[in-house]
Amino acid sequence: MQTELSRKLGIEHAVFGFTPFPAVAAAISRAGGFGVLGAVRYTAPDDLARDLDWLDAHTGGRPYGLDVVMPARTVEGPKDQTLTEADVEAMIPEEHRRFVRDTLAAHRVPELAEGEASGWRITGWLEQVARTQLDVAFDHPIRLLANALGSPPADVVARAHDQDILVAALAGSARHARKHRQAGIDIVVAQGYEAGGHTGEIATMVLTPEIVEAVDPLPVLAAGGIGSGPQVAAALTLGAQGVWLGSVWLTTTEAELHSPALTRKLLAAGSGDTVRSRALTGKPARQLRTAWTDAWDDPAGPGTLPMPLQGLLVAEAVSRIQKYEVEPLLGTPVGQIVGRMTTERSVQAVVDDLTRGFEQAVDRINRIAGRSGQS
Amino acid sequence: MQTELSRKLGIEHAVFGFTPFPAVAAAISRAGGFGVLGAVRYTAPDDLARDLDWLDAHTGGRPYGLDVVMPARTVEGPKDQTLTEADVEAMIPEEHRRFVRDTLAAHRVPELAEGEASGWRITGWLEQVARTQLDVAFDHPIRLLANALGSPPADVVARAHDQDILVAALAGSARHARKHRQAGIDIVVAQGYEAGGHTGEIATMVLTPEIVEAVDPLPVLAAGGIGSGPQVAAALTLGAQGVWLGSVWLTTTEAELHSPALTRKLLAAGSGDTVRSRALTGKPARQLRTAWTDAWDDPAGPGTLPMPLQGLLVAEAVSRIQKYEVEPLLGTPVGQIVGRMTTERSVQAVVDDLTRGFEQAVDRINRIAGRSGQS
Repeated sequence: MQTELSRKLGIEHAVFGFTPFPAVAAAISRAGGFGVLGAVRYTAPDDLARDLDWLDAHTGGRPYGLDVVMPARTVEGPKDQTLTEADVEAMIPEEHRRFVRDTLAAHRVPELAEGEASGWRITGWLEQVARTQLDVAFDHPIRLLANALGSPPADVVARAHDQDILVAALAGSARHARKHRQAGIDIVVAQGYEAGGHTGEIATMVLTPEIVEAVDPLPVLAAGGIGSGPQVAAALTLGAQGVWLGSVWLTTTEAELHSPALTRKLLAAGSGDTVRSRALTGKPARQLRTAWTDAWDDPAGPGTLPMPLQGLLVAEAVSRIQKYEVEPLLGTPVGQIVGRMTTERSVQAVVDDLTRGFEQAVDRINRIAGRSGQS
Repeated sequence: MQTELSRKLGIEHAVFGFTPFPAVAAAISRAGGFGVLGAVRYTAPDDLARDLDWLDAHTGGRPYGLDVVMPARTVEGPKDQTLTEADVEAMIPEEHRRFVRDTLAAHRVPELAEGEASGWRITGWLEQVARTQLDVAFDHPIRLLANALGSPPADVVARAHDQDILVAALAGSARHARKHRQAGIDIVVAQGYEAGGHTGEIATMVLTPEIVEAVDPLPVLAAGGIGSGPQVAAALTLGAQGVWLGSVWLTTTEAELHSPALTRKLLAAGSGDTVRSRALTGKPARQLRTAWTDAWDDPAGPGTLPMPLQGLLVAEAVSRIQKYEVEPLLGTPVGQIVGRMTTERSVQAVVDDLTRGFEQAVDRINRIAGRSGQS
C-alpha cells in the first residue's frame, strides 16, 4: 500500500494513526504505519519532552509526528493582550458552573482529593500553551506536525519547513482546505462527519474527493469512518494518499485509557451510539453519547459555552467522571467506527487486519471490474 | 462493472438510479444501468399506469423497477380502522396551519388559481394509496420493487416473488437491515447520512460494510454521497453489489423539474448547502437548506408534525412555492453530492462519466496496491 506521500515519508503502509498515547504511536510506526502523538493533554512541557524522548527510543528509527491544537481564534480579548487561563476562567458564567455542580451531584460523582490536580486539562487549546509544546517538539526528530483546528501560524510553518518537517492540518470543508493551502501547509487531513473529535457536517465519501480536487496537487489523508481494510481501500480509491485513523487505537492493548469501564463501553458501543456535541470543547466534536452529552445538548439546560471556555469549565468534572468511572457520564471522543471496535487487540494486529483487508478489497474490486486475472 | 446482482438482473453496470421522472428512469436503463421510478408522486393509479406503459415502450427491453413508500406505521388510528386522508387532515393543529399561512405570506407566495389542485401531494405515504399503486405495478413487467420506508408487508413480498420480482428496502442501520431480511426481502439499500431524502445518522463509509455483514449473503446497494466513478468504486470496495443514486439525475437534461430556478439552485449549491430536516414529511430527510427548512427547524416556531401529518400540512404550500418559483423557499430532497452537480448533462453522459471514472479509480488503487502491471 504505497502512495507518493508514503514513499516520501519512507513508511510501509499509508496508514497514519493519531493517538494521545506514546506507546500506541510508537507501535503504529513500528508496524509500518505513521504514529502521530496528540499533544493537547500535555500541560507541562517537561512531560511532553519526556514522552518524545521515549518515542525516539521506541519507534525503532521509524518516523513519527506530533499533533497540536492551535485554533486560529478562540476568545476575543482586548487587542494585543495575551489572555491567561485566569482571564478565560473569569469569563465563565456562574449559571454554567452551577449546572456542572448539579449534574455531577445528580450522579453522585465524588470530589477529587484535596490538592489533587485535574489530570485532564484543555489548556492545550490556548495558543501560548501550544507554542511551548512546539518549542519542545522542534527539539525532537519529528517528521510531521499536524494542527487539529485551523491553519498553523506562518512562523510555525516556516520553522517546520526549515527542519524538513511536513505540516498537516485538518479540514472539514473544501473552503477550509483551500485556506490551509494558502497558509503553506503540505498535507490536508479531510475529516469527515463520521470521524471522532471535531468534525463538520460533510461525510467522508463526499468530503475526500472534494478536498482532493480543491488542493490538488497537495496530498490528502482521509479521516472518518475508517477502521477496516475495505474502508482504507475505499478512501484511497477516492483519491486520498493515505488514511488518518484515531478511534481504532483506543481499544488496543497498548492504549492507556486506565479505565476498564470506558474500554467496556467502547467495545459495546454500536455505530449509532456517538453524537456530535459541543459538550467537550465548545465546538462540535463526535464522542460517545452519554448522560453528560445529553445534559449539555438538552434545550432545557444552559447549553455549552464557546471554545475554550467550555473545555475549561468541564475539565475538572471530566477528570472526576473518569477517575471514578461514573458509567452513565463516562465518554470519550470517538467516531462512528466504534461499532467495529469489538475486541481488544494489539496495534500490530490492527495494522495486520487493515493491510490484509486492503488486499482482499483490491481483489474484490478487480473481480467487479473484470480484471480477475490480475489479482 | 459486474456483480452477482447485476448479472442476475442482466444489466451492464451495477448502477441503480432512483428518479421520479419516467424519462430519466428509461434513459438510465437504456444506458446500461437500472432505472427505478419513484411512485410517491402518483395519486391517480391511471397516471402511474400510463407512465409505466410509456416506460415499457422506452426502455429498449432493458429491466426497470418501481419504488413505493409504505411506512410500517404512520398515524395511530383506532384499532382496525382504516384512516382516510380526511381523518389525517383533521389531526393537524390550527397553530401549524397558521404558521404555514404566515410563512408563505411573509415571502409573498401567490395562491393557486381557483380549482387548481395541488400538483405535489404526499398521499402516497398512506398504505392504501401505495396498495393501489402496487396493483398497477404488478400489471407491468417490473423487475424490482423497492420500499423506501420500513419492510413491505408479507403479502406484497409474496406477490412480488410469485412474479419473479426482486424486493428491495432502504435501511439506515444494521438493525433495520436485519428486520428487512426477516421480512423476506431480496436486496437492502444502505442509505447513508449524506444521502438525499430520508436518512439516518450513520454515514455511507461506516453503514455499507456494517449492513453487508449484517445481512450476508443478501446483496446490498450503497446509497448516499455517490455521484462520481471513484465514489462508485469506493462503495463497491466496501462490499456493496451496486450503487443506488438519486440526486445526480435531478440536473440531467431528461429531468422534468419544470423549474429553471430550482435547477439553478441545484447547480449552484455546495456540499454544505443541504440539511437533514423534518420539514418535508415529518421524518428526517436531507434536502436543500432554504428559508422554508430554516422556518420549520427554528426552535422559536411550532416545529414539525409526525409523518404523514407534516406532508399533508405542507403539500399545497410546497406546490405554490414550486409553481411560482419563490426562490428563498424553493428546495428539493437532494444529498450532499449536490456539490458535484455543476452542469446539466444527459443521463447517458452521467453514466459514461461514472463508468469511465470507475475504471480510472480501479487503475489508481491497483497502482497503490503495487499491481500496476495489471491495470
